[in-house]
Amino acid sequence: MTAPKTNSGRFFEDFAVGQVLEHATPRTLTTGDAALYMGLYGARFAVQSSDAFARALGYAQAPLDDLLVFHTVFGKTVADISLNAIANLGYAECRILRAVYPGDTLDAASEVIGLRENANRASGVVYVRTTGRNDRGDIVVQYVRWVMVRKRDPASAAPAPVVPKLPERVDPAGLGQAVPVLDVARYDVRLAGAPHRWDDYAAGERIDHVDAMTVEEAEHQTATRLYQNTAKVHFNLHEQAQGQFKRRLVYGGVVMSLARALSFNGLANAFHIAAVNGGRHVAPCFAGDTVYGWSEVLERAEIPGRRDIGALRTRLVAAKNRSCADFPLRNANGDYADGVILDLDLWLVLPRR
Amino acid sequence: MTAPKTNSGRFFEDFAVGQVLEHATPRTLTTGDAALYMGLYGARFAVQSSDAFARALGYAQAPLDDLLVFHTVFGKTVADISLNAIANLGYAECRILRAVYPGDTLDAASEVIGLRENANRASGVVYVRTTGRNDRGDIVVQYVRWVMVRKRDPASAAPAPVVPKLPERVDPAGLGQAVPVLDVARYDVRLAGAPHRWDDYAAGERIDHVDAMTVEEAEHQTATRLYQNTAKVHFNLHEQAQGQFKRRLVYGGVVMSLARALSFNGLANAFHIAAVNGGRHVAPCFAGDTVYGWSEVLERAEIPGRRDIGALRTRLVAAKNRSCADFPLRNANGDYADGVILDLDLWLVLPRR
Amino acid sequence: MTAPKTNSGRFFEDFAVGQVLEHATPRTLTTGDAALYMGLYGARFAVQSSDAFARALGYAQAPLDDLLVFHTVFGKTVADISLNAIANLGYAECRILRAVYPGDTLDAASEVIGLRENANRASGVVYVRTTGRNDRGDIVVQYVRWVMVRKRDPASAAPAPVVPKLPERVDPAGLGQAVPVLDVARYDVRLAGAPHRWDDYAAGERIDHVDAMTVEEAEHQTATRLYQNTAKVHFNLHEQAQGQFKRRLVYGGVVMSLARALSFNGLANAFHIAAVNGGRHVAPCFAGDTVYGWSEVLERAEIPGRRDIGALRTRLVAAKNRSCADFPLRNANGDYADGVILDLDLWLVLPRR
Repeated sequence: MTAPKTNSGRFFEDFAVGQVLEHATPRTLTTGDAALYMGLYGARFAVQSSDAFARALGYAQAPLDDLLVFHTVFGKTVADISLNAIANLGYAECRILRAVYPGDTLDAASEVIGLRENANRASGVVYVRTTGRNDRGDIVVQYVRWVMVRKRDPASAAPAPVVPKLPERVDPAGLGQAVPVLDVARYDVRLAGAPHRWDDYAAGERIDHVDAMTVEEAEHQTATRLYQNTAKVHFNLHEQAQGQFKRRLVYGGVVMSLARALSFNGLANAFHIAAVNGGRHVAPCFAGDTVYGWSEVLERAEIPGRRDIGALRTRLVAAKNRSCADFPLRNANGDYADGVILDLDLWLVLPRR
Repeated sequence: MTAPKTNSGRFFEDFAVGQVLEHATPRTLTTGDAALYMGLYGARFAVQSSDAFARALGYAQAPLDDLLVFHTVFGKTVADISLNAIANLGYAECRILRAVYPGDTLDAASEVIGLRENANRASGVVYVRTTGRNDRGDIVVQYVRWVMVRKRDPASAAPAPVVPKLPERVDPAGLGQAVPVLDVARYDVRLAGAPHRWDDYAAGERIDHVDAMTVEEAEHQTATRLYQNTAKVHFNLHEQAQGQFKRRLVYGGVVMSLARALSFNGLANAFHIAAVNGGRHVAPCFAGDTVYGWSEVLERAEIPGRRDIGALRTRLVAAKNRSCADFPLRNANGDYADGVILDLDLWLVLPRR
Repeated sequence: MTAPKTNSGRFFEDFAVGQVLEHATPRTLTTGDAALYMGLYGARFAVQSSDAFARALGYAQAPLDDLLVFHTVFGKTVADISLNAIANLGYAECRILRAVYPGDTLDAASEVIGLRENANRASGVVYVRTTGRNDRGDIVVQYVRWVMVRKRDPASAAPAPVVPKLPERVDPAGLGQAVPVLDVARYDVRLAGAPHRWDDYAAGERIDHVDAMTVEEAEHQTATRLYQNTAKVHFNLHEQAQGQFKRRLVYGGVVMSLARALSFNGLANAFHIAAVNGGRHVAPCFAGDTVYGWSEVLERAEIPGRRDIGALRTRLVAAKNRSCADFPLRNANGDYADGVILDLDLWLVLPRR
């Protein structure tokens, strides 16, 4: 007899705190990925769009979009971590630590940093810290996420609960490592599309990004495959038609990228996502839904040692099938308002005056 | 208070003759864009498909498709010129002046060359001459377009009307600047797909391009985002469902590229669009429509100083949901026939014998 | 009068045994094509995904997917061979003979090796051997296919039947020419996603690939255009709506690539398709169908002179809108079971211990 060859995914019992999972498949990102990413979301940030613009500032060439890097690393973890997941519960402490350029190869590993069985004993929460590296061994992205994973057997014993203490936000002192020291005088706000620099934003400011994008099945599937993310809920209509939603679910990362692309209108010079402090996929998104977005500036922070750039902590909210002109977030009960699908807490980097 | 950060677009009152608008976002085009463009339209012209074929002729490598260059430059102008446009009325004097290769970065500026308030005082026509340049400062494309733009306030005063005099067609003496002097003996008509050279076409000849393409929402959205064209009518179903057409409009440039790709069948050696003498988007195209095309040869012109190539002036017509075997154009009243959606007047370049 | 310029395709009478057809359009494949191919199918084989992984083994860089190469060559033949085809009947003796890298330009020629009029005299079967070469003249892929082609005139005389003798399978002695001698010690099964090497599979073993993919119109159209395959049944809804199926047909090559990508789950180290011994598109696939797949190991063969790699002959079956957990193939009558759409006979290459 030959051994079974297919991957049926880990259950809650298969994880142990301290365990390190090294993920398949290493992936070289290229200008081809950058072009397809552009076609899928239409972002207009000048640094990622133009080699000439990026080089003038001090980059080797146009770096790849931060979320393309994030999704590529995330995609690798699915087969090892979330194939039997019930829900992706949250992100924390995500830091983009190095610019990724076309030609760089990324791989990823995750360490289990927490485990807690649920009261119903049918599932538990798994906390992992995932690290993505380039082919020179440099860490390019690192983040914590936690997912609810089914138990193979509700009766099986569970380990003592370990819940990692996660910071509310990434310390701004560590931001901007992926950004070379910029020749800010050469940052051409006219080419970049708006005059507003870091100095021009203030905590409490809210920005409706106005534009919106309707998502198609072919688009989210193509995006999700590009990240080699194989979670079947995004691809298998035949099976999903029997499920709760009767249709395929759009990968939450697609909503993140759409909201980020829309945020250009109002945050044109926020050219880099330095960190994701936290994030929740509040409600599902389906093909045919139209995604809008708005941002609130939560905090403006200097980055020690950097006079060229500053950090803006923003909440980026995406809503579907409703304008964000009224900045939807919570309803009177404190629950997320109808239509809100994404609530992200970001550190953005902008050039200073 | 912080200043509003989003772009709500210019109204008719915001334009002045002589005003120069420098557009965001500079964009490096790559082989990734070329591949996606191929996947979206399926053109088969050998010069743009094969580095080996292009190099044998004298190009540095396969140049990017002329319309990819045009749409990229056009896309940049939308946020500054046509966000509040009611209609894109026409093009003239569009010339492709230099081959664009993967790695080139394009940016764009437009000069306002005409303004004329409409009789209803609610809107006016804005004429601009747009110039796209590569990162060495060379002009790669230049064209005039005019759009109907809403007034912010119908009661506001309008400037004295200025209507530019536009030539009926680009002078053939200026054509072919984007084409190196070709080693025509090495132009392999067998590899290119058809034996017919410039010499083999005659004014009055009509060609049904036979093939056809049905457009999908995901396709036109992906194409339009690739050009960083943000006009919301192409992307926002939630809003469009309340509008005149109840659905998203396909960007006219997508129809141009589809018709151009279809024209390979009959014009396989017309490897370069040297100029667009004029163009009208006669009727809207929607996802689900099937686009056919036909061409009429209007004029055959030598290009002074060039024995390698000649110019063919053609009318390229696209129609939807009807074959072009009967060359649809006008009905008995002189109006465009049902189904006609595009009427382009082009200068094409072909190798000579 | 000018000569007709469009290609209406060859009829059965237009073929003669020994005739060589050199096909348009040469095509340079790039990392852009690789990225789009990834976005369309989501394969996860490490060799094609990562320059770093491929280089460690002895490749110059990540080679392009074997089926991308096959479809590109196949696409070129459509205009010359199958524009008037009624059906694509089969493949045999397909061998991938050389790795194709981004930047390589492919062209193709076909020799007619067999002709046989059908009993109804309305059509006949045309056998061709197609050869795809890179721009250095190396053969990269060669295969035989046979198609049923309409006669222009049922009354016309037919040539004496010539039916080529085709081997049931490619001799394993000739396999692996596209694979450099691998430094197998550096083949990292952890990065590749599964521990199973050639030695771990056995004849008779059956593998359900578990995962599945629903196909969208925009996806199969984009894929098929990427290969410059112009067969109108894939693109023209307006015409197809009047036909037998009332809708567009998915190009069979899309189903092949989907099934191949799905087969990663169970065959993660089968990084190369060395040969297609035979293949049948058993039933049509349409947008909205969900494709599943399973494989059976038919034979395990050493490759003379190669200690690094071995060959696995597998049957790769794709079915639509049904799980492959029960390995669907034939029904009680010996006909293909409901839902089966593809039956491929492959030689796969895997690293040995």
